[in-house]
Amino acid sequence: MELVPNNSLICATPEEGRQLAVHLAMQTAFAIQPDGQVEHIIRDAYANNPDSIISASQVVATEFATVAAANNYWR
Amino acid sequence: MELVPNNSLICATPEEGRQLAVHLAMQTAFAIQPDGQVEHIIRDAYANNPDSIISASQVVATEFATVAAANNYWR
Amino acid sequence: MELVPNNSLICATPEEGRQLAVHLAMQTAFAIQPDGQVEHIIRDAYANNPDSIISASQVVATEFATVAAANNYWR
Amino acid sequence: MELVPNNSLICATPEEGRQLAVHLAMQTAFAIQPDGQVEHIIRDAYANNPDSIISASQVVATEFATVAAANNYWR
Amino acid sequence: MELVPNNSLICATPEEGRQLAVHLAMQTAFAIQPDGQVEHIIRDAYANNPDSIISASQVVATEFATVAAANNYWR
Amino acid sequence: MELVPNNSLICATPEEGRQLAVHLAMQTAFAIQPDGQVEHIIRDAYANNPDSIISASQVVATEFATVAAANNYWR
Repeated sequence: MELVPNNSLICATPEEGRQLAVHLAMQTAFAIQPDGQVEHIIRDAYANNPDSIISASQVVATEFATVAAANNYWR
Repeated sequence: MELVPNNSLICATPEEGRQLAVHLAMQTAFAIQPDGQVEHIIRDAYANNPDSIISASQVVATEFATVAAANNYWR
Repeated sequence: MELVPNNSLICATPEEGRQLAVHLAMQTAFAIQPDGQVEHIIRDAYANNPDSIISASQVVATEFATVAAANNYWR
Repeated sequence: MELVPNNSLICATPEEGRQLAVHLAMQTAFAIQPDGQVEHIIRDAYANNPDSIISASQVVATEFATVAAANNYWR
Repeated sequence: MELVPNNSLICATPEEGRQLAVHLAMQTAFAIQPDGQVEHIIRDAYANNPDSIISASQVVATEFATVAAANNYWR
Repeated sequence: MELVPNNSLICATPEEGRQLAVHLAMQTAFAIQPDGQVEHIIRDAYANNPDSIISASQVVATEFATVAAANNYWR
């Protein structure tokens, strides 16, 4: 499994950086628990439990902080 | 879906930076779970569950840290 | 609604910076869910649920990290 | 109420910095909900609920990151 | 028990950095509670509780921020 | 009670830095609630509740970020 797409944190734009952050956040579940069942229970949580979505948004925010710093905030 | 409005973290003022942070935090839910039902269950949580609002405030605080750093804190 | 008072993160002292962090943290709830009911359910949580207060303290700590960095830690 | 003792983040030693971080973290509850009942329900949570203590430890860790940066890590 | 593999945060690539972050995050459980039962209850949580996986993803994101900074974001 | 062992964040190696982070994270509970009962309820949580262990791992990750920065990531 590839954890970091293209093996790089460098992105052309903030939009691409944000997509990378979402990808990194979502991918961790499979690195932690690599079985097919995980995708099902996570998807179910996102579809039905707002607090699961908010917690996942927190993970995305944390990953984005790293990606944004890596790209010097696209200044 | 556009995740980062105007594809930039640069904002003229702290107030605009704060609005961007709120927007980024709120938008992640739809990037994670892109169906119409999500908006409903999230709105319901914000209207009725104080802990959901506090958790979402944590996401905003984390996004704002990134936006503020990107703008060199508007010093 | 004004999200950042005086539209600035610059504060004369750590005490003022702390007050700003508390304000930012508390204000986010109304940016997320702008109706009168929110203040009621949040206040009720703070009065009765210690875990809500601890979670809100986490938000304040995160906002304060940003405000303190903005002010170069008042060194 | 004084939120930042001595109105400064500068501490002579890491030990003093840690004490300041604990103080900042604990004090926020009273800034959020300034009534006498809060101290009671928070103390009760700390005495009986391990997850409340762990969450409060997270707040302390976040405050300490700020205090340590302010003091250039006492290098 | 070795907490940091190779006693170093320096990694050749983002992918290796990500693997280190996952390892650091997973390893902490055994540093906190060094008995054989812990692995069982943690694995059970990851297999069945999406919120446990999301919380663990938050830990990974936080560790990765440190590893990425240590490696100057592989710029 | 000594909160920071040797009153320093400087560590010779990442492994020692990690041990310090675990120590700081675990010690906070006793700074918050200094009675003998706390150790019992915390240990019980770590032995039986995976989410308590994951939350404590988050505290360790946050403390480690500070310790690693203090040591310039042992570059």
